[in-house]
Amino acid sequence: MGIEETVVGLCRAARQAARMLAKVRTNQKNDALRQSAQKLRKDSAEILAANRQDVEAAKQVGLTAAMIDRLSLDPSRIESMASGLDVIASLPDPVGETIARWRRPNGLEISQVRIPLGVVGIIYESRPNVTADAAGLCLKSGNAAVLKGGSEAFETNRAIAHVIAEALEAAGLPRQAVQLIPSTDREAVSVLLAQNELIDVIVPRGGTSLIRAITESSRIPVIQHYAGICHTYVDEHADPAMAVRVCVNAKVQRPGVCNAMETLLINEKVAAQFLPAVAEPLRAAKVELRGCEKAKAILPDIVAATEEDWRTEYLDLILSIKVVQSLEEAIGFINTYGTGHSDAIVTDSYENARRFVDEVDSAAVYVNASTRFTDGYEFGFGAEVGISTNRLHARGPMGLRELTTYKYTILGTGQIRE
Amino acid sequence: MGIEETVVGLCRAARQAARMLAKVRTNQKNDALRQSAQKLRKDSAEILAANRQDVEAAKQVGLTAAMIDRLSLDPSRIESMASGLDVIASLPDPVGETIARWRRPNGLEISQVRIPLGVVGIIYESRPNVTADAAGLCLKSGNAAVLKGGSEAFETNRAIAHVIAEALEAAGLPRQAVQLIPSTDREAVSVLLAQNELIDVIVPRGGTSLIRAITESSRIPVIQHYAGICHTYVDEHADPAMAVRVCVNAKVQRPGVCNAMETLLINEKVAAQFLPAVAEPLRAAKVELRGCEKAKAILPDIVAATEEDWRTEYLDLILSIKVVQSLEEAIGFINTYGTGHSDAIVTDSYENARRFVDEVDSAAVYVNASTRFTDGYEFGFGAEVGISTNRLHARGPMGLRELTTYKYTILGTGQIRE
Repeated sequence: MGIEETVVGLCRAARQAARMLAKVRTNQKNDALRQSAQKLRKDSAEILAANRQDVEAAKQVGLTAAMIDRLSLDPSRIESMASGLDVIASLPDPVGETIARWRRPNGLEISQVRIPLGVVGIIYESRPNVTADAAGLCLKSGNAAVLKGGSEAFETNRAIAHVIAEALEAAGLPRQAVQLIPSTDREAVSVLLAQNELIDVIVPRGGTSLIRAITESSRIPVIQHYAGICHTYVDEHADPAMAVRVCVNAKVQRPGVCNAMETLLINEKVAAQFLPAVAEPLRAAKVELRGCEKAKAILPDIVAATEEDWRTEYLDLILSIKVVQSLEEAIGFINTYGTGHSDAIVTDSYENARRFVDEVDSAAVYVNASTRFTDGYEFGFGAEVGISTNRLHARGPMGLRELTTYKYTILGTGQIRE
Repeated sequence: MGIEETVVGLCRAARQAARMLAKVRTNQKNDALRQSAQKLRKDSAEILAANRQDVEAAKQVGLTAAMIDRLSLDPSRIESMASGLDVIASLPDPVGETIARWRRPNGLEISQVRIPLGVVGIIYESRPNVTADAAGLCLKSGNAAVLKGGSEAFETNRAIAHVIAEALEAAGLPRQAVQLIPSTDREAVSVLLAQNELIDVIVPRGGTSLIRAITESSRIPVIQHYAGICHTYVDEHADPAMAVRVCVNAKVQRPGVCNAMETLLINEKVAAQFLPAVAEPLRAAKVELRGCEKAKAILPDIVAATEEDWRTEYLDLILSIKVVQSLEEAIGFINTYGTGHSDAIVTDSYENARRFVDEVDSAAVYVNASTRFTDGYEFGFGAEVGISTNRLHARGPMGLRELTTYKYTILGTGQIRE
């Protein structure tokens, strides 16, 4: 069987499983999730053996140590996959939730009710924990999942997907509800992205280049999780100690993620006092500082920032600094150079806080808090599918709800339209 | 200036106007809407003169009488455009609505707040009233609009867009907030559909072929408004008089629209009594009946339905009829041949109503009511942008809210992430 036939057949089976999954009760889905968790623990020897094959092959082809680390499993990583599934089982089921309900003058009773999207395609890179995580999130939200993992994790993903399929079956659900594309062929992705009749949405999990490539060739809507160039603006009315604490946290606590601060904006009225105060702990944390001319006038030994810096997501211990004349300039700068992800103001001015929140066009706009909170768990969603940089459908942190759509149900007593 | 330069320049100006529009107060938007309405009335002579040019040209090139009728304006059609804008002014503003608000254990206060999508591209066919209607809906929801109307209505659309631009200016808003592409060149559409950095969403208003062509070539997300193959299933427990009334209304009241019934499903236990009862008023309304074998056994003189009939949106006085053995068969049939638009059951069985509502995967699922109610006005939205057949972002009737997205605002007191 050719790769096209395989992928299409598998998507068709997923579509059919999705119909069944959409009407399954929460208890049964939770049962499948908990059985998957148990089986991951029980079969960990098989999964680790499969993982050793992948790791061996990765060493052979000379993958970097960082890539091999991302790929490698050990008992504690398997346990965290399993407990992740247990957590998903414990979350509220978004399916069936009534979003709104009203009665029309003619007596029709209209409800807007959450239902699953249908079939979700997930394309991801090396971390094999995504296999369990994505499967769990789709299952709980009533969606069938078609998974395409990275070729370097092929054996590991297959072992994990097998465990989940067995658990689905044990819970009385179709094993086709979670399917892994059984191929490392790149062609498989092109075939998958052409199945707009069978797959409802594609959620890529990986770097910008992966997402861009998928978006360009997909005939299915893609929920994008692009980079974050996040700003913190320290207003002239900021509490200096709070501003230092928030900025350092936003930059340093985990610099390699999309909600970390990349650019610090500072009002010129307080730049001379604030910049030295924030530079000290940042330097202690080994952050390289790059600044505009005015920033360099205050901190002479920092690197000169270029236009390129304002447009760069460093994902690293580097920070660009820009001194601005006003709140207005800060907002304009963020709306020009930012990526609409997460941006913060530190201020004690009610008026400035309000203007910042109203006018910064980002998915998450903060007053007096670190941008690092843009995250499904930190928002209280219990789980995270990703952080959408789309404006349509879902924006910002995505939880289980964002993997659903809705339908209207209209209960009448024989109404006809005049 | 070439067409590409023109379109890109205009999209860029719209993007800038959108930023301003997003923060404008409701009063000012309503003022612009009401001034547009007044100016349409006041300048109706100019608009009618422009319309006469289009109608003359349409006659020259031999457009059909139906197309010329759709294109033609008269004082009463201008009045209805104007009063449409007054109605939009009277509707609640979706922008700024707090969808949800909660406090996290660490004290962060998170709000999910509705904001405009940004720039909406509307591509439409001959009816020039769409120019005013689409402009009004976008303006009220805080979006800038880039309009591309049909070439046969070019002069009319230009005259209407000019009136709106003047009214925007008079209300202190940028006239670039509503722009008509000043060209009949087909190339203009391709250029428009490539502006994914400047335009947030495309809403086509027109037939299936227009929507399909746009979807295939767009780099911008498209909200599709595809055909409806709508079903009514008459259950064995239906009140026969109600079933006749609902079916006749769904088929006959306005057969040329997407929420009209195209296929009648009838339980075999009641087919022998019901089919003759419903056939009589349908025939009186000049509906051509086409049936499956079992239906033909009851109504021998009807046309035999083919597989093709189940897949056809007639948009005409034609009805296909299928006798089914069970509720289950009816649901399976609808989920197979339907388009997920609007489907109804007529029944007095609680259990069957519940199963139908749960298992039919359509945007609007009815119990004991005509499918003709799937409509923004009938749903109580006050206005209608269209009826989405997408599953992502918006599904079913779209009102002003569906032209918005949201952002999260997070108010803190210096929180940092541990």
